[in-house]
Amino acid sequence: MSDNLTLSIDAMGGDNAPDMVVEGVDTALERLTGVSFLLFGDEARLNPLLDRFPRARAVSQVRHTSDVVTNDAKPAHALRQGRASSMRLAINAVADGEAAGIVSAGNTGALMAMAKFVLKTLPGIDRPAIATYFPTRRGESVMLDLGANVECDAENLIQFAVMGEVFARNVLGLENPSVGILNVGQEDLKGNQAVKLASQGLMNAALPLHFHGFVEGDDIGAGTVDVIVTDGFTGNVALKTAEGTAKLFGHFLREALTSTFTAKIGALLAKRALMTFKMRIDPRRYNGAMLVGLNGICVKSHGGTDGVGFANAIHVAVDLISNNFNESIKEDYEKFRASSDPDALKDNSEPTDTNTPDGSGAVANG
Amino acid sequence: MSDNLTLSIDAMGGDNAPDMVVEGVDTALERLTGVSFLLFGDEARLNPLLDRFPRARAVSQVRHTSDVVTNDAKPAHALRQGRASSMRLAINAVADGEAAGIVSAGNTGALMAMAKFVLKTLPGIDRPAIATYFPTRRGESVMLDLGANVECDAENLIQFAVMGEVFARNVLGLENPSVGILNVGQEDLKGNQAVKLASQGLMNAALPLHFHGFVEGDDIGAGTVDVIVTDGFTGNVALKTAEGTAKLFGHFLREALTSTFTAKIGALLAKRALMTFKMRIDPRRYNGAMLVGLNGICVKSHGGTDGVGFANAIHVAVDLISNNFNESIKEDYEKFRASSDPDALKDNSEPTDTNTPDGSGAVANG
Repeated sequence: MSDNLTLSIDAMGGDNAPDMVVEGVDTALERLTGVSFLLFGDEARLNPLLDRFPRARAVSQVRHTSDVVTNDAKPAHALRQGRASSMRLAINAVADGEAAGIVSAGNTGALMAMAKFVLKTLPGIDRPAIATYFPTRRGESVMLDLGANVECDAENLIQFAVMGEVFARNVLGLENPSVGILNVGQEDLKGNQAVKLASQGLMNAALPLHFHGFVEGDDIGAGTVDVIVTDGFTGNVALKTAEGTAKLFGHFLREALTSTFTAKIGALLAKRALMTFKMRIDPRRYNGAMLVGLNGICVKSHGGTDGVGFANAIHVAVDLISNNFNESIKEDYEKFRASSDPDALKDNSEPTDTNTPDGSGAVANG
Repeated sequence: MSDNLTLSIDAMGGDNAPDMVVEGVDTALERLTGVSFLLFGDEARLNPLLDRFPRARAVSQVRHTSDVVTNDAKPAHALRQGRASSMRLAINAVADGEAAGIVSAGNTGALMAMAKFVLKTLPGIDRPAIATYFPTRRGESVMLDLGANVECDAENLIQFAVMGEVFARNVLGLENPSVGILNVGQEDLKGNQAVKLASQGLMNAALPLHFHGFVEGDDIGAGTVDVIVTDGFTGNVALKTAEGTAKLFGHFLREALTSTFTAKIGALLAKRALMTFKMRIDPRRYNGAMLVGLNGICVKSHGGTDGVGFANAIHVAVDLISNNFNESIKEDYEKFRASSDPDALKDNSEPTDTNTPDGSGAVANG
């Protein structure tokens, strides 16, 4: 990847900052040329670190601030009180045109609130969403929203669909990515009003978007679709449930492979294969949640990550910038609006009791 | 387990019915005494099967009907047209006092609709829920609702909490089970109105129920609480996401362990340990979703299960009956109502924009 671009870095965000941030910048440079960095944070801590990483030092500029947004800060508080924080100044650099995008491993709520306030949303996009990509049986998929919006209407879900499709096409490099809406069943009559209307809207749109229809929780790992659209409540629970299940599975596997002498020998012989397996599900490889729908590229690294993970978040930001992610969203969303009837998304139905025996509320688990 | 009780069986429900049903009855009898069965279904198919399983034959009575609820039948249609179906007649037997409970591997939506219509709900319970238990790092937990109610208010969630707690105590045998509400963060201000009000209601109740507070998706596998309470939309997605992740993980592991000659030898040596691991996460062990809140015991077996899985669903039904599950729910829910202020659960707040920078809508993923 070779580009002449500048990234703005919140050098103080994250559990292991600023050490892992500088390390991450250095690691990212193994695969990047033409990228320079503005590091916002405490120069007394950053300068000695940069001395240890001359490759990072050569393309970085430190912008000093001693103010930091803490992990437990409420977003509204951070927005009011954190005007001189490393996170806020790093976002400002994007708004001012000094940087093409920003990466932070800090407080997600504060980052979203500040980025929305400073950068604003893209034309036509009401609410930004948090998106990430993850391994599936068929490759990689992207899911959004992962928690920015606890409640979503059909219009929000459609905007997420358009943004997710652009991401899959431009960043994952998929040619005609399929899009599914997460639901409790695949039939049209299943689910709440928002998913039903969003599904109808996407089916009726003349947009060249490959809409698969509804998908269920087990379709996430199966890779049934390339883009999974959902509200922030469900998406957040689904993502964390998947993480928790992977951890549980890993725990059971470790217990089994250390349970007897023969199992230990077997595990030793299969060590290289087990390492490959471990790498394949390494969360650091999938580090870098995108705050999509903002008028500027904003990538959130996992707060507990290390240098390797932070480097991956930097790569995600560079990919989004190089592929004109936001310009594509704007174009595609305009196409969608031009091709669809906005009134079709309004909920004109009578309120329904989802638990009536008409079964709209009863879903199979068998 | 030794009881004098009769179970009513929908012998035609499920992908592999009636074969796996009769096999399941026979397998269940390995660990049951004093239990007899009413098998509802096609006698021309059931009698030859029973001839092959004399142990099952000895304690079973066939009640002939040729009518069946299909897997794709809409619940409302099944309710109207399926009055002579094996599923409906099996439920009727519980209402008539002929059987103490019913097990079916058929269409979940139809089963819920019919059971609710025929058996009615327990006093004080507005909506039945689907509950199941599953393995965690600390043992076993129960989660509900898994899809009966797409939208739930605070009162519904509290009823689920009471029912889940009774289940964990009486069936899982836990002494003081902890209860958590699934949310997108652990802080009080996170989440939608229903989870916030339900949490307040459970905190303020004088019920001797160990309410932990909010939990997140990764707490499910970690076993942070014994009972996980959620609406049917989120619960269904979470359960299926966990299943899908486990499958994906198993797929990656199989690929790794067959990738090289050495890995294959290693896997061979660790075979016994890997089998134990596989058994530990065998979904058949956790087969048997309870339709809780009904005035009668109703267990739903997974539609695609085999005889081993169906036998486990029978054991779940026997456990629920032997432990007076429904009587305990009635008592505990009355205690809860007596100890709490019903008006406290009403949503009197102003509608809020969950996406405002006050952060109530923005959750951390890092």
